[in-house]
Amino acid sequence: MSELLRNAVGRLVPNVINGERHVPFQGVGKYKPESGKHSTKISRFADYPSDGNKQVANLREALIKSGLRDGMTISSHHHFRNGDIIMNMVFDIVKELGVKDLRWFPSASFPCHSYLTKYLEDGTINRIEGSMNGPLGKFTSEGKMKGTAVLRSHGGRYQAIQDGDVKIDITIIVAGTADSFGNANGVNGTSASGLLGFALGDSQYANKVIVVTDNVVPFPCVPWQIQGNYVDYTVKVEKVGEPEKIISGTTKITKSPDRLLLAEMTAKFCDAAGIIKEGFSFQAGAGGTALAVGKYFGDIMRKRNIKARFARGGSNKYLVSMLEEGLIEYILDGQTFDLDGVRSMRDNQNHVWTSPFTSYNYHAKGNFAGMVDVVILGATEVDVNFNGNVCTHSDGQLLHGIGGWQNCLFSKTVILPLPLFRNRIPVIIDEVTTLVGPGELIDVIVTERGIAINPLRADLIEAVKGSGLPIRTIHELKAEAEAICGVPKKPVFEDRIIAAIKWVDGTVIDVVRKVKNY
Amino acid sequence: MSELLRNAVGRLVPNVINGERHVPFQGVGKYKPESGKHSTKISRFADYPSDGNKQVANLREALIKSGLRDGMTISSHHHFRNGDIIMNMVFDIVKELGVKDLRWFPSASFPCHSYLTKYLEDGTINRIEGSMNGPLGKFTSEGKMKGTAVLRSHGGRYQAIQDGDVKIDITIIVAGTADSFGNANGVNGTSASGLLGFALGDSQYANKVIVVTDNVVPFPCVPWQIQGNYVDYTVKVEKVGEPEKIISGTTKITKSPDRLLLAEMTAKFCDAAGIIKEGFSFQAGAGGTALAVGKYFGDIMRKRNIKARFARGGSNKYLVSMLEEGLIEYILDGQTFDLDGVRSMRDNQNHVWTSPFTSYNYHAKGNFAGMVDVVILGATEVDVNFNGNVCTHSDGQLLHGIGGWQNCLFSKTVILPLPLFRNRIPVIIDEVTTLVGPGELIDVIVTERGIAINPLRADLIEAVKGSGLPIRTIHELKAEAEAICGVPKKPVFEDRIIAAIKWVDGTVIDVVRKVKNY
Repeated sequence: MSELLRNAVGRLVPNVINGERHVPFQGVGKYKPESGKHSTKISRFADYPSDGNKQVANLREALIKSGLRDGMTISSHHHFRNGDIIMNMVFDIVKELGVKDLRWFPSASFPCHSYLTKYLEDGTINRIEGSMNGPLGKFTSEGKMKGTAVLRSHGGRYQAIQDGDVKIDITIIVAGTADSFGNANGVNGTSASGLLGFALGDSQYANKVIVVTDNVVPFPCVPWQIQGNYVDYTVKVEKVGEPEKIISGTTKITKSPDRLLLAEMTAKFCDAAGIIKEGFSFQAGAGGTALAVGKYFGDIMRKRNIKARFARGGSNKYLVSMLEEGLIEYILDGQTFDLDGVRSMRDNQNHVWTSPFTSYNYHAKGNFAGMVDVVILGATEVDVNFNGNVCTHSDGQLLHGIGGWQNCLFSKTVILPLPLFRNRIPVIIDEVTTLVGPGELIDVIVTERGIAINPLRADLIEAVKGSGLPIRTIHELKAEAEAICGVPKKPVFEDRIIAAIKWVDGTVIDVVRKVKNY
Repeated sequence: MSELLRNAVGRLVPNVINGERHVPFQGVGKYKPESGKHSTKISRFADYPSDGNKQVANLREALIKSGLRDGMTISSHHHFRNGDIIMNMVFDIVKELGVKDLRWFPSASFPCHSYLTKYLEDGTINRIEGSMNGPLGKFTSEGKMKGTAVLRSHGGRYQAIQDGDVKIDITIIVAGTADSFGNANGVNGTSASGLLGFALGDSQYANKVIVVTDNVVPFPCVPWQIQGNYVDYTVKVEKVGEPEKIISGTTKITKSPDRLLLAEMTAKFCDAAGIIKEGFSFQAGAGGTALAVGKYFGDIMRKRNIKARFARGGSNKYLVSMLEEGLIEYILDGQTFDLDGVRSMRDNQNHVWTSPFTSYNYHAKGNFAGMVDVVILGATEVDVNFNGNVCTHSDGQLLHGIGGWQNCLFSKTVILPLPLFRNRIPVIIDEVTTLVGPGELIDVIVTERGIAINPLRADLIEAVKGSGLPIRTIHELKAEAEAICGVPKKPVFEDRIIAAIKWVDGTVIDVVRKVKNY
C-alpha cells in the first residue's frame, strides 16, 4: 500500500510507485543505502560463438533470442536524439509479437518518439521512465500514461542501474560503428553521434545487450566505447538514424541582446569572484546563453593570458575552437552537439569522452562534478529559497528531462543566468512548482536586472563587494518582476501523480501531478 | 572437511582450500556457476572530499584509513615486474602495525619480492594467491608457506574477482602518473609501465582502493586507465619503482640457431596451413623464440603483400615497428615490454590498451582470445595427449605463473614451438607433472625434429599435406627424444598440497605437491 510521506524538502511523495518501494528524499548527502550493487548474472564464454561473431539476422531475431516477454524493462540511450529511428522499430516488433506491459527506460525521449503514443495507449508500453522532451511529456501531463513516469538525472540513471533499482532485461545500443563482437563507438560512420556514454551502465548491467549499427567493421572496432564483452547480439540495419537530426547543427550563440546581457553579466560575476584564474574549470551547456558565456570567458582568458585546465562538454564548435586555440587544456565531454565536436573527439587526445559514471554517479567514490569550479545552468523556475525547477513549466506541464542538471549542482559554484520573466511570467517565485534541485546547492541567480547570491555563500558575497555588479536579494528581484508582470497564477493539479522526480541518490524529491482540466 | 575428488582430467584435487570451498574442473565449457557477480558495497559521493582531492599523507595512513586488519586480502598488480618497490614497503607497514595472517593476491610476484619471505615465515602473510616467479615459487615448493597457494591465469584472476571468489579488502595500484582524485595511467611519468590493465578488476571490485604514484598531475590525469571514481585514497611517494627494471629492455630476438629453427618452422607451418592471409591476427609472446616467429611472419607478409588486422601484445619494438610499417593495423596490447611499446601506446591510436576483462575473462559474453587466428605459446612440458604444463619444472618445482597462457588456448589455432629436450630432459612425456591446459585445446607442437598436430585438428592435418613439412605423431617425437636422452625420471612428491591450479572458469584443474626431500 502506497502512503504519501513528507520528504526533507517538504514535498508529499509516495513510498510505492508502480508497485515498487521508493525512499523519500532525506536531505543532501543523508541517504545511506544498505544493499550492495546489482549482482548481474555470470555469463560464460562457452555460451557465445567462439569466433566472437554475434551477429543475428535482424532486430526481431535479436529481441526473440533475448527472451522478450510481457512486463520486461527495455532500455535505450539518446545519443541520436530526435534522429533516432530504431526505438520506434523496436516497439513495432514488440507490438507484432503481441508482447505487453513493458517499461521503456530510455536515457531520454524526443519528439520523434511521439510515434509511440499508440503503444502507450494500447498497453504495449506501460510507462516511460526517462526524460520526456515535448509531446510525450505533454501526453503524460494529461494523465494518459498507464504507469507513473520516473525521471532521473544522467547520474541518477547510472546510479539506478548500478544499484539494481532498475533491472534492465534488454537494452538496445545504437552505434555509428560496431564490429560483430559488439565493440561499438559513436565517433565513426555516417551516423556518428560522438560517444555512447549514456548506454554504458545499460551495457554493464542489462541482462541482454543488443548492439545495432549500419556500419559493421571487422574486429576490432576501435575505439570501443561500448565493450563487446558485455554484448549478446549484434544487428546490422540499413540505417540507424537521421544523421542530420543526430547532430543538431543548430548550436549558435544567441543574438538576443537580453541573453547576451545575461551571459556577459555571468562572465563578469565569475571574473569579479576570482573564479576565472589559471587552471580553472567550467561547464556551460549548449544553449544560446551558455554558449555566449563561454565566449565571454574566452575574451577574459585571452586578455589576461589565462588557461583553463578543463571544460566539461556538451561540446560544440565554440568549445572545440577554444581547445584548439590552447585556451583549454582538456575537454571532458559527455555529449557532442555538432560535427566539430565529433571530429575533435575522434582526433584530439585532449578531447576526452566521459560517461555518467565518471562524471555524475553519486554512488561512486566521488565524481567529476565536484571538481568543476563553475557551472552555468538553466531553469524554468527558481524560488526565493533558491530551489530550482527544470522539468515543469509554470502551467504545470512536464516538458523537460533533468539531464545532468541535478548532478552539476555539486560543482563548486552553480550559477543560473535567467531572464527575470518569460512571456510576462516571472521566473522567480515563492515556491517552485516542481522541486528538482534543493536551494542549498544553487549559489547565484543572474538576471538582467540584478544578481542574487545565495546567503549560504558568504564567501561569494564578500568576494564581489565593491565590484560594481548589481547585487540584489532574491526577494528584491522577485518583487521587481512582480511589479512589472503581477503575481503569477499557480497551476492547478488533480491528485493523480503522473511522474516522480528522483534525486541523484535514488530518493524521491518531488512528484508531478496531472494538470487540472485535461 | 576437505575431500580429494578426481576431476574431469583425472587429477585428484581438494574441494576445500584454505578453508574455502572450490569446485573441481568439470571439463572445458562445462561448469555453470549459479551465483551472480560480486555485489560490492554502494559508495557515496558524500563520503569523499567534495573537491575530489583524496590524497593522504603516506601509505601508512592510507592503509590505516582503509581499515587494515588481521586476515584481510591485499591485492596488487605486476606492471612494475621486478622493479616493484611498493609491495615490500606495504608489508613493512603491515608488520609494523602488527597485522597478521594476510592473503596477498598479486597478479604476479617477482624475485624482488623474495624480501617478503620473512613475512611469510612470521605469519604476517599467510599465503600468496598469484603467480610466483622464481624464489617465492621455490619457497612454496619447499612447503614453507603456511597457507596453500592458488594460481590463476590473467583472465581467471579477473573472473575470480568479478565473481566474488576472491573478495579483495584493500588493493594497491601503483601508477606512473595519477591525479589526486585517483585517475591513473602507466603511459606517462618516469616510471611508465605502459598500462594498468591487471589492476582493473581490483579497482572495480576491491572494498578499498589506494593509488600510489610519484608523478601527481592536476585533474584530469588523461588517459585514465584506472578511473578515480573507484579510488578511495591517493598517495604520493618519492619513487614508485626501479624504472630500468620495470621495462626490461632485454626483449631481443633469439640468436640461438635451434630457437631460430623452431621459429622458422612455426612460421612455415602457419603459412602452409593457410593461416597467414589478408586480415589475419596473431599473438606471440615476448620470449626470444616468439619474437623470432613475429619476424618470420613479417617476412612472409611483406613478400605476399599481406596485412594483419591485429596482433595481440605484450608489445615490444619489433611489434611496434610492424605496426608503424603498416604490416599490422592494430596492436591490442595487454602489457608493454619495452619503451617503444610504451611510446607507441601513448602516441598511436591504433596501439590500443586491453585488459584481462576484454582479452581473457571467461565469465563474460565472450572475450578477445577466441578471435585470434593463431597464438604462439611456450610450455615446460607437454604430454602425448597434448596436455600442457607451464607452472612446474620437470623436477616438480613451482617456478612460473600461468599468465595469459590458459586464456590464449581458446584462440583458433594454438601452437607450441618447443625444443625436443632441455638440458637432456625430454619435453614431451607420458603425462605432464602439472596439468595446466587440457590437450583438447592445444593444436600443434613444433620441435626441431618434427611437428605434431593434435588428431582433433583433422583440418590442419589435411591443410599441410604435401607441404614438405616434417609432420610426425607426438609419440614419434617422444620416442625420438627418449632415444637420445633416455626416459626421464619423474619428480617425487609428498602428500602435502602446496598450490592449486585454477582453470579459467574458477574450477581446480590440478594441484602441486611439496617436492620430496625438502
